[in-house]
Amino acid sequence: MRPCEAFKDVFEVLQSNAVSHAIVPIENTLHGSVHENYDHLLEYEARICGETSIRISHQLIALPAVRFRDIRRVFSHPVAINQCRKFFDKFSHIEPVPFYDTAGSVKMLREKRPAGAAAIASESAAAIYGGRILKRNIEDDRQNFTRFFLLTKQAESSAPAGSRWKTSLVFSTRNIPGALFKAMACFALRDLNLTKIESRPLRGKPWEYLFYVDLLGRDTDPAVRKALDNLGETTEFVKVLGSYRPTP
Amino acid sequence: MRPCEAFKDVFEVLQSNAVSHAIVPIENTLHGSVHENYDHLLEYEARICGETSIRISHQLIALPAVRFRDIRRVFSHPVAINQCRKFFDKFSHIEPVPFYDTAGSVKMLREKRPAGAAAIASESAAAIYGGRILKRNIEDDRQNFTRFFLLTKQAESSAPAGSRWKTSLVFSTRNIPGALFKAMACFALRDLNLTKIESRPLRGKPWEYLFYVDLLGRDTDPAVRKALDNLGETTEFVKVLGSYRPTP
Repeated sequence: MRPCEAFKDVFEVLQSNAVSHAIVPIENTLHGSVHENYDHLLEYEARICGETSIRISHQLIALPAVRFRDIRRVFSHPVAINQCRKFFDKFSHIEPVPFYDTAGSVKMLREKRPAGAAAIASESAAAIYGGRILKRNIEDDRQNFTRFFLLTKQAESSAPAGSRWKTSLVFSTRNIPGALFKAMACFALRDLNLTKIESRPLRGKPWEYLFYVDLLGRDTDPAVRKALDNLGETTEFVKVLGSYRPTP
Repeated sequence: MRPCEAFKDVFEVLQSNAVSHAIVPIENTLHGSVHENYDHLLEYEARICGETSIRISHQLIALPAVRFRDIRRVFSHPVAINQCRKFFDKFSHIEPVPFYDTAGSVKMLREKRPAGAAAIASESAAAIYGGRILKRNIEDDRQNFTRFFLLTKQAESSAPAGSRWKTSLVFSTRNIPGALFKAMACFALRDLNLTKIESRPLRGKPWEYLFYVDLLGRDTDPAVRKALDNLGETTEFVKVLGSYRPTP
């Protein structure tokens, strides 16, 4: 395990062969796509070889001796605090205190033992740092999932059985009317099903766009290969980011 | 001016007629779409009547008497801190300290006067709270823009002259192969130009998707009206969020 401070560092250690695989978040159901990691996927030698989605749930965690009625301050990352607004509305005597990260706030409780304090973090942060969960799943919205890509430098053939292949790709078009329609035709003509499409304007190049597409199928399937060939004819640029089978 | 703590509150005060207009962020070039606000646009009575994009730049701000060489700690929102990683790499004796928000960290400097401290915030936060900018534009990536929607309860006819109309809409399709292609055909057949398309899976409804689309044209233009009629035939659900002219 090699934790990295920044997404860019994850791609750097993968590229330098310091690790065989890497994991990055790529989208969240509430917060959208992580464009930065799409940029790195274009820039670095990295292939997607797996994906998984994790439900984000927030636990109120304190040191074992601390009771809920003693809590006056709760430390966590501001994004996590903001996803537990109903909790802070209900217990208005408890003050949210921003901290650098969620798990780190539990670690800090153990190290500094501030009085009347708790943290918001995951169940595993509680287990790792010896915290006790005082209230479970205090997040406002349960439809909070983050999708992660597993990356490697080489395309891999091994994959978990039992789920269908997916392929992720990026392409760009000039935004002449119908350019996207032609690109979509490459998939529709072969009855290929898309599970994601997203445009992203290219800054400094008005009317040029990147498109992120996920489709059901593997890049070695004849229909997918033909669609990709066809896409190459109608677009400025195509890059296949990888074919993989989702881990449930 | 009526600042709100949460996006939902912005829609609530607009709906209750406490304000005539409201402003919410809808996407950021690095962080993607703000899905939460798309959800509120579907749920509340709100029409988009304008849009603008603002370049996000970060300033290092301190109280007037403080010199750069005295700075040991810099307070700001973790997202802002994370967008200034090169600054903290270069000046590694300076510790980033997470704070609840960017402007609020300048206000805190003035109120609490912590020793050797600075904040990362906007130029206007420096002006409002009497801070001095020690270093300008310390963000790593200058391609950081946030797009905002101006909202009102009623469709408006007034709009700044000189820019082309845009229309934003949301529709949903069952993900049968080609459903999106048919939807795109409604626009392509009329040579309507899309400036955004983004899919979002509907959780709990496998294979159903919401699509966010922006197109050039006004909802009262004959070609746009026909495209929208046509779209209604081929999709499960369509909602026009508004027609507006971008403010440069």
